[in-house]
Amino acid sequence: MEYFYIPELGAAGRQLSVVGQEARHIIKVLRHNPGDELWATDGRGNEFRLVIKSIKSDRLMVRVLEKRPGQREPGRKVSLALAVLKGDKLRTVVEAVTELGVSEILPFVSERVIGRMDEARLHRIRAVAVSGMKTALGTVLPVIRPVVSLSRLISSFSDYQQVIVAYEEEQERGIADVLNLGIRSLLLVIGPEGGFTTDEVAQLQDGGAVAVTLGPRRLRAEIAAIVATGVCFSLTGDLGGKLNSAKGGG
Amino acid sequence: MEYFYIPELGAAGRQLSVVGQEARHIIKVLRHNPGDELWATDGRGNEFRLVIKSIKSDRLMVRVLEKRPGQREPGRKVSLALAVLKGDKLRTVVEAVTELGVSEILPFVSERVIGRMDEARLHRIRAVAVSGMKTALGTVLPVIRPVVSLSRLISSFSDYQQVIVAYEEEQERGIADVLNLGIRSLLLVIGPEGGFTTDEVAQLQDGGAVAVTLGPRRLRAEIAAIVATGVCFSLTGDLGGKLNSAKGGG
Repeated sequence: MEYFYIPELGAAGRQLSVVGQEARHIIKVLRHNPGDELWATDGRGNEFRLVIKSIKSDRLMVRVLEKRPGQREPGRKVSLALAVLKGDKLRTVVEAVTELGVSEILPFVSERVIGRMDEARLHRIRAVAVSGMKTALGTVLPVIRPVVSLSRLISSFSDYQQVIVAYEEEQERGIADVLNLGIRSLLLVIGPEGGFTTDEVAQLQDGGAVAVTLGPRRLRAEIAAIVATGVCFSLTGDLGGKLNSAKGGG
Repeated sequence: MEYFYIPELGAAGRQLSVVGQEARHIIKVLRHNPGDELWATDGRGNEFRLVIKSIKSDRLMVRVLEKRPGQREPGRKVSLALAVLKGDKLRTVVEAVTELGVSEILPFVSERVIGRMDEARLHRIRAVAVSGMKTALGTVLPVIRPVVSLSRLISSFSDYQQVIVAYEEEQERGIADVLNLGIRSLLLVIGPEGGFTTDEVAQLQDGGAVAVTLGPRRLRAEIAAIVATGVCFSLTGDLGGKLNSAKGGG
C-alpha cells in the first residue's frame, strides 16, 4: 500500500493542488494517472482517500473523497528523549521509533554525548520521521524538538505524567515494574553511547525520572532506544493482541 | 569494559597463545602490555579473566586466571528464523538480536525474498554476530545456520517447544497472548520485506507455528524482527526487572 504525506489536505470534497517531492514521486516514479485513488495523511492525525483530477508537469490536482481520524495511532502519547548519537544511529532510531508510533522526539546533549546536531542534520532527521510515518501507515508526524541540554530536558519533565530513564547501573526494576498503565503521556529517556554519569542520573531522578534496567546485557544506545520503545508499546497494548490491551485499559 | 572472543580458551591455570584479529586488536589498537588483565568469552557459555604473560609481534601469550559460566545469558533459548533481507538489513538484525541474546539464527528463503545469501555474506554475518556478542558482554555466540527453504524450515519446527510467526493479517493475538512462559526453547519467525503469502502462512500454521500481530502499524521487516525479539525477552524476564521474571518462573 502506498501512503503519502500531504500536510495541506483538508475537508472531504475539497480540491487542492499538490507540488513538491510527494507530487513528483506520484507522477514520475509511480506514474499515477488522473482517476487513480491514493491514501494520504496530513501528519496531524488524519487519513485521506483522494482521487487525482489532473496532472500538469510536476503539479497534481487532487480531490478529497474521504477524511477520517487515523486508525493506527497508539492509545498513549509516548515521547522519546534521545541523546544526540553519532553518525547514522540517530536516524536509525528516529525512523524505527516513528514506525512504532512515538509522537515526539527530544534530542539532548549530556556529558558523554559525542554526536553533534546542526540544522542540516535536524532537517535530515525530520525527513526520516516522515518516511517512518509513511512506512507505518501512521497519521501523526512526530515533533522533532530542537536540541537541549540535560538540565533543560529535566525542566520539561513536568509536561509528562511519567518519565522513565534507562540506566545500566539499575539492577532491580524493569520497564514492566514501573510503567504506569493509567497515564496518557510518557517520556522515555535514553542516554548516549557512553551512558549517563552518576551525577546526571541523580539529576534525572531528582527531576522525577524513574530509573529502569534493560537487563544484564550491554546494548548499543540505538538498540536500547528501539527495544525500550517497543517494550513500552507492548505493555500499553499498542503492539496488538488482547492480553496487554486489556491490561492497558485502552 | 573491553570484552574479547577467544574460542580456544580453557580451564583456569592454562596458558595459551592467541593469534589473529583479537590478538592484533589487543596489541596494536588497545596497546595492552604484559601484566594487563582482560575479560573474554569462548562463545560457548563461559567467561574468563586472563592475564597477558608476554607479547611477541602479533602473538599474545595469556594465562587463564578464572573461568566461570556466563552471567548474562537469557533463561530461555530463543531462536530467530529470519527471511534473507536485502542489503544491510540482515546484519542490522543479526547484530541487534545477538545483543539481546538469541542463541540461533536460521536464515530462510520464501516466495517474496529478494535478498541473496552467498558464502561471503554468511561470513560477514557471522562476524557481526561476534561483534554483537562482545558488545552485550554475552558468552554464547549464536549459531548462524545455512540458508534453507521455507518448507525445510518448517520441518525443523519440531526442534522447538513453541514456534511463533509474525503475520500482518493476524488481528487478534499478540506475542503476550500466545507466548508460553513454561517452555525452554522458542522459535520466532519473521518474514521478508513483502511478507508471507497466504499459502505460506497456512503452511507455517500447519507446521505448528502460531501467528501473532505486532500491532496495526506496518513495520519494516528488520524493525519487526528486533522489536519482536525484544518483546519476547521482555516477557520472559530477560530484559530485567522483577515483574516479568516472576511471571517467567526463571
